[in-house]
Amino acid sequence: MADKNNGATLKPCAVVVGAGSRQGIGGALCARFAAAGLHVYATGRSADKLEPLATEIRTSGGSVTAVTADAANPADVQTLFDRITEAGHVPELVVFNASELNMPTSFAATTPEFVEKMWRTCCFGGFVVGHEAIERMLPQKRGTLIFTGASASLRGRPKFGAFAAAKAGLRIHAQAFAREFGPEGIHVAHVVVDGIVGGDRANKFGYGLGKAFLFTKGEDGALHPDAIAESYWQLHCQHRSAWTHELDLRPYKETF
Amino acid sequence: MADKNNGATLKPCAVVVGAGSRQGIGGALCARFAAAGLHVYATGRSADKLEPLATEIRTSGGSVTAVTADAANPADVQTLFDRITEAGHVPELVVFNASELNMPTSFAATTPEFVEKMWRTCCFGGFVVGHEAIERMLPQKRGTLIFTGASASLRGRPKFGAFAAAKAGLRIHAQAFAREFGPEGIHVAHVVVDGIVGGDRANKFGYGLGKAFLFTKGEDGALHPDAIAESYWQLHCQHRSAWTHELDLRPYKETF
Amino acid sequence: MADKNNGATLKPCAVVVGAGSRQGIGGALCARFAAAGLHVYATGRSADKLEPLATEIRTSGGSVTAVTADAANPADVQTLFDRITEAGHVPELVVFNASELNMPTSFAATTPEFVEKMWRTCCFGGFVVGHEAIERMLPQKRGTLIFTGASASLRGRPKFGAFAAAKAGLRIHAQAFAREFGPEGIHVAHVVVDGIVGGDRANKFGYGLGKAFLFTKGEDGALHPDAIAESYWQLHCQHRSAWTHELDLRPYKETF
Amino acid sequence: MADKNNGATLKPCAVVVGAGSRQGIGGALCARFAAAGLHVYATGRSADKLEPLATEIRTSGGSVTAVTADAANPADVQTLFDRITEAGHVPELVVFNASELNMPTSFAATTPEFVEKMWRTCCFGGFVVGHEAIERMLPQKRGTLIFTGASASLRGRPKFGAFAAAKAGLRIHAQAFAREFGPEGIHVAHVVVDGIVGGDRANKFGYGLGKAFLFTKGEDGALHPDAIAESYWQLHCQHRSAWTHELDLRPYKETF
Repeated sequence: MADKNNGATLKPCAVVVGAGSRQGIGGALCARFAAAGLHVYATGRSADKLEPLATEIRTSGGSVTAVTADAANPADVQTLFDRITEAGHVPELVVFNASELNMPTSFAATTPEFVEKMWRTCCFGGFVVGHEAIERMLPQKRGTLIFTGASASLRGRPKFGAFAAAKAGLRIHAQAFAREFGPEGIHVAHVVVDGIVGGDRANKFGYGLGKAFLFTKGEDGALHPDAIAESYWQLHCQHRSAWTHELDLRPYKETF
Repeated sequence: MADKNNGATLKPCAVVVGAGSRQGIGGALCARFAAAGLHVYATGRSADKLEPLATEIRTSGGSVTAVTADAANPADVQTLFDRITEAGHVPELVVFNASELNMPTSFAATTPEFVEKMWRTCCFGGFVVGHEAIERMLPQKRGTLIFTGASASLRGRPKFGAFAAAKAGLRIHAQAFAREFGPEGIHVAHVVVDGIVGGDRANKFGYGLGKAFLFTKGEDGALHPDAIAESYWQLHCQHRSAWTHELDLRPYKETF
Repeated sequence: MADKNNGATLKPCAVVVGAGSRQGIGGALCARFAAAGLHVYATGRSADKLEPLATEIRTSGGSVTAVTADAANPADVQTLFDRITEAGHVPELVVFNASELNMPTSFAATTPEFVEKMWRTCCFGGFVVGHEAIERMLPQKRGTLIFTGASASLRGRPKFGAFAAAKAGLRIHAQAFAREFGPEGIHVAHVVVDGIVGGDRANKFGYGLGKAFLFTKGEDGALHPDAIAESYWQLHCQHRSAWTHELDLRPYKETF
Repeated sequence: MADKNNGATLKPCAVVVGAGSRQGIGGALCARFAAAGLHVYATGRSADKLEPLATEIRTSGGSVTAVTADAANPADVQTLFDRITEAGHVPELVVFNASELNMPTSFAATTPEFVEKMWRTCCFGGFVVGHEAIERMLPQKRGTLIFTGASASLRGRPKFGAFAAAKAGLRIHAQAFAREFGPEGIHVAHVVVDGIVGGDRANKFGYGLGKAFLFTKGEDGALHPDAIAESYWQLHCQHRSAWTHELDLRPYKETF
């Protein structure tokens, strides 16, 4: 799996953009990829969450580097990937998982500034990360690039227009990357995560609402981050003669 | 059709954002709405094109005001709608038709700046115009708001990712508006224009390529702007018990 | 609009397959097309409904022939079109509007026989009518062929699988016809009618449920058949440089 | 994994409907499921192919029963599942993989009989198998049911209308099953196989065309049946909090 680049042998690594606590999707992805033996770059906006995550992964025997970075800032993203190269790594599996929180927003609160913030984090950041990742993967003619989507990626519902428009844009960037660079050996996939994720956010927002969510959906009614991470890993393992470019993930009880 | 607003009687008008020459979609829309008797605000970034358009419409007996404005600038859009109100008009039919040119772009040329420019013109501007239009229409509980889309609104193809992602985001903003404000009496529709439009752009780019396009598709192989405008007008005329929220328009010979 | 065929001049006509009472979609289509001056062949399975419809149209000054036929029976359909030719007509506008009633069906009641009946009426009949219509239109290199779809055409919901699968198949037949024969001058369109239609069925089933529907959706909350018919007519009037191949129609208050 | 049913302990098994040679999707599925330790019922219309397949699987240490059956015949399907129950098995993983060959068909050759044959094999058979499988799985409140689709499931192209309409109907049956029985513990998924499958059919038709296909797409340009089978198996292994209901599989070089 190692390749020569400028005379040096680069070791494959995974990069998770939008890593948070071990209980969220990003953290679960880092843990899964580390468990598979890849060195993982766990990046996110909050250093507070990254360090405990890195510690937990190392305790389980994984190898990880925590990097604070804002994916929506092209300079940050370039610095991140430069740092990876300087460390002798080449990204073999990159996930863009950053997102703003998806909460209903009134017409009045859906200001141009709000729409731009949503787009910058959820869509623009994804393009920036994807573009940079592909540039690093192309010389190897291999690599997997996965984008985390949502049911909002597919339709705009009342009070969710800003989030949905950003997620729909992200999905189309993913699709264009997939079509252009699939034949170059880069596997690009978009995952529609549909439902409440049973991690920190669910605990904070979903579960916090008088436990209403838990009562309605019951056991396994929220997506387990580790179950999500497993499907991302399986995408990476697919043979290039039969790649998946989009799949949905939702709890068995979820209405869709 | 007139309503009282702050004690004054407001007259209905049409607003076309992204009006250019009489030979493009925007100009054809202005002409069609003026022919139906509505006063039309023709707005675009190029004053150069707006004045000849306004003159042509007036010569045909229409009533029109040309306004230079950048739809991607929220302040410009607010000024535009304030001016409409001050003139005693209320927007009854608003079309967002602004767009960047859709040309294939190499991976290297698809920079963050390029992606942002595409989004700002094609998507963000649409949100800004739509939001402002709905705010003005809501007190009347009536109005039609139409967004011009493209086949790119539905999928991302190689070298068109930036344009497609912006257009896809625009479509979802339109959808969210439609779902939230349809029940309030605002008819929001998205039109997928699929094919070369037989106006200025086609003459400049499509037809300019050694007439290759004309040879391939033949008569009526490019969308006539007036034919497009007719379908927009029919959308506006639909009874509220049977509204269309999305339709495609393409030449009879177009592959899809 | 007339063409020579085998030495004889054929007059254009409209054919509505799945015509019922004047209060349903089929009846409204017949009335609209007759009002536009076309001779209309109103066909359906129930002679009981066709005669009163024909009488009503004639009273309004329209020209109509009522034909009892089962669209799912290829022999019936061929006989119908032969009869049209023998009468000196050529179909210029054909609508396939036949359908089984769309009611929730339990798992147990969704037998192979039920699934086949749904398919035969809603999907197979549409293919048969479309194929026959295209054969008759091709020599003229013109004609419009419209299929009535439903929101079920786009997705399968619990208890509606049989209906939805049939409608989805119909939609794809329409799409294949559109793509193959558009370049030959045949305009094929599929209309997604989403909501309760405010005609006989609504009165019998929707309205009959303690008027619950009327209370929920209010005035114009059900699709007016005449409003639907107007959009079908506008599809027929579109210029061939800007044809619509699919549009949705739903009441302004309908959730989607 | 075993459950009690009428006092007897039933052992889990897999059922592949549409099994052919080891080189096709169906055969690869049987081999993969057997390798995972499940007893496999390999069923298809051609006894000729099933026996060599069964022999090959047994040689590799797998356990398999070959059953000749026509999935489009409800009696055959009931007999098949009755036989499974009588053998002390309960279906835990059922795949509907039967299909007619997908070849371009002229307008003239697309007769009502042809359309019906396509529907009966590709769509109706899928409903019948799915309905029967769900009935057997429901008492266990568990099981996986997978349908093999194609890119034609999503759109109708010229000369492929009959096949596409049938496949689109199959997809919607799958979707309705998924939505209705997911909450009951039955995982229903639809797989869009997009591209030439590098098995028998490719050898016979794709490869037979002067090897044109191989020259165009190169190594791994056709889907490897074993790679497809791996993804089906992974679907079965998904945790119920994060199920996939639809995914695509296509070679890395495939245009989409």
